[in-house]
Amino acid sequence: MSLEVFVLGTSGMQPLPGRFLTSAMVRRNGELFLFDCGEGTQVSLKMLNLHWKRINRIFISHMHADHVTGLPGLLMLSSQVDRDEPLYIYGPERLREYIDANRKLLDMYINYEIRFVPTEPGIILETDEYSVEAVPLLHTKPCMGFVMKEKDRPGEFSVENAKALGIPCGPMWGMLQRGSDVTLEDGRVIHPDQVLGSPRKGVKFSYVTDTVYMGHIASHVAGSDLLLCEGMFTRDLSQDAFEKKHMTSTQAAMIARDGKVGKLGLIHYSPRYTDKELRQLKDEACEVFPETVLCKDRCSFELTNRD
Amino acid sequence: MSLEVFVLGTSGMQPLPGRFLTSAMVRRNGELFLFDCGEGTQVSLKMLNLHWKRINRIFISHMHADHVTGLPGLLMLSSQVDRDEPLYIYGPERLREYIDANRKLLDMYINYEIRFVPTEPGIILETDEYSVEAVPLLHTKPCMGFVMKEKDRPGEFSVENAKALGIPCGPMWGMLQRGSDVTLEDGRVIHPDQVLGSPRKGVKFSYVTDTVYMGHIASHVAGSDLLLCEGMFTRDLSQDAFEKKHMTSTQAAMIARDGKVGKLGLIHYSPRYTDKELRQLKDEACEVFPETVLCKDRCSFELTNRD
Repeated sequence: MSLEVFVLGTSGMQPLPGRFLTSAMVRRNGELFLFDCGEGTQVSLKMLNLHWKRINRIFISHMHADHVTGLPGLLMLSSQVDRDEPLYIYGPERLREYIDANRKLLDMYINYEIRFVPTEPGIILETDEYSVEAVPLLHTKPCMGFVMKEKDRPGEFSVENAKALGIPCGPMWGMLQRGSDVTLEDGRVIHPDQVLGSPRKGVKFSYVTDTVYMGHIASHVAGSDLLLCEGMFTRDLSQDAFEKKHMTSTQAAMIARDGKVGKLGLIHYSPRYTDKELRQLKDEACEVFPETVLCKDRCSFELTNRD
Repeated sequence: MSLEVFVLGTSGMQPLPGRFLTSAMVRRNGELFLFDCGEGTQVSLKMLNLHWKRINRIFISHMHADHVTGLPGLLMLSSQVDRDEPLYIYGPERLREYIDANRKLLDMYINYEIRFVPTEPGIILETDEYSVEAVPLLHTKPCMGFVMKEKDRPGEFSVENAKALGIPCGPMWGMLQRGSDVTLEDGRVIHPDQVLGSPRKGVKFSYVTDTVYMGHIASHVAGSDLLLCEGMFTRDLSQDAFEKKHMTSTQAAMIARDGKVGKLGLIHYSPRYTDKELRQLKDEACEVFPETVLCKDRCSFELTNRD
C-alpha cells in the first residue's frame, strides 16, 4: 500500500497570506486522516480538491488555537454530504469539551456521529493493516505526536515458483501465503520463503509538533518514510525555542537523523520568517539531515514501500 | 470626518480560496471597528496591512460559525501588542459564553480587558461624534444588523464673513460656531447662519447580514453612504433564500433603493457561485438599484460627507 500526505498549512501561531495554520491530511486506501486543524484548513482542502467531507479520523495534537480553530467549521461543512460511518476524533480530553461547547454555542448542524477518543500515549488505533501511536511530547500544555504505521506484509507469492515446485493450485497456496509450511503428496515440505518474495515493509508516517527537543522522539519515529516536524526557529533562537517549548529546525533534523527517516518535512515555522530566514531554517536542518524539505502549503508526498 | 470600510471576507457558510468568511472593518479617526469575524479574517487584515491589533470594538451579528470562528485567533493575536484600552465586543449573550469557553479551553493568553456588551435593538453605542444602532433581523437564530452614523456637524466657520461683518476675533466666534446668536457692540445681532456654511452631514455606514427581507430594514439604513448587505442568492432561488432565512441580491437592492443609500455592496454570497452566477447576482441587483457593487475580498470604500 501507500500513503499520500498533503500538507494543508505550515504556519505556527498565526495564519498568513499563503501560509495557513498547521494541518496535514493523509489518504490511504480511500480513507482520510486529518492531523490538526488550524484556521484555513478547509481552504487548502478545497484548493487541493480532496473531496474531504467524508473524512474518517481526526487527530489533534493539543489544545492551542493554531491547531484547532479550523475544526468547528470543518465539522459543520462535513454535514453537506451523507455518511453512515462515524467520524472518530482523537485528542486531549479538553477537545471533547471544545467540540461540545462549539456545537452548543454555534448550534452546529452535524448529521453524523462523532466518536471522541481521548488520547493516551501508546497505540490509539489498530486495524489489520495499520496502527497509529500517540507519542508524548513536551509543550506548554499536554501534546502528542502521531505515528502512523502500516503493518509489514508477506512478500509477493510467486505463482511461477509454486508451479515449478509442483505445488497444486488450491488451499496450499493460501497456507504458504499466510506463512505456514505445507507438505506435498510426495512428502516434500515446502517453506513459505520458497514461494514468497521478500517481506513488503509497511509505510510509516510521523507528525510531530509542538514540543521541545527530546531524545525519545527519534525512537518513536524511527524508520519513518516521512517525518513532518515542527522547525519553528533558526538556530540562533534556540534559547527562545526552549523557553516557548518549541524546536529549532536543527533539532527537528537531529530527530530525523537519529531516527533514520526517509525524509524530513519542516512545518509550523515562525510567522515572522520570510524567504531569507526560511532558507536559513532549511539550510541549518540540511547540515544535520540532508533529506530535509521546507514544506509549503499544499505540498504533497507519496509514500510507497521502500523495499 | 470620513469612514474607510474594508471588506475582509465575502463568502457565506464556507471559506473558499480567495473568498474568506464574512467580515468587514471600519476605520474612523484612528479607531478600528470590526463587523463579524469569520475564518480568514486575520489573513485579510494582514494582507491589507491594517495594523489591526489595537482594534477598538467588535460587533458580531449572530452566533453562526461563519461569522464568528475567526474570533478566538484574532483575540489571541491582539495580545501581541500592548494596549491600555479595553476591547469592547457587542453581540448576543451567547457570544460571551463562546468567548469564555474558548478562553478557558484553549488557554488563550489575552493581555487586555474585554468588555462584553449584550446587543439589544436600538442605539448600543453613542459618543459625541457617532452612534451605532443594532437593527433586529430575522434569521434562523437571533441576529442584528448594525448602522454606524456620524453626527452632523455645523457648517464650516467663514473667517472671511466674520471679518466682513466686523465680528471681533475672540469668544464670539466660538459662540457662533456652537450655534448661538451674538450681539455686537454696535447692537447688531449676528445669527450663526451668517458665518457658517451649510451643516456638514455625518457619514453613515450599514452592515446587514443574515436575514430574510423585511421592510423595516430600509428605514434603519436610510441615507447610508454605503450599505454592505448580504445577497446570498440569485432571484431564481428566492424560495430557497426564504426557507434558509437569507436574501436574494434583488431583495438587498430593494432595501438599498427604498433606503436611498449611496451605494450597495453585496457580501455573503453563496459559496457555490462562480463568476457566471456572481455576474447574474450583481446584474439582478443593478436592475433594481444601479449603484450596486459585488464586493470582493479586501475591496475598500472611502466614505466622505456627500454635502
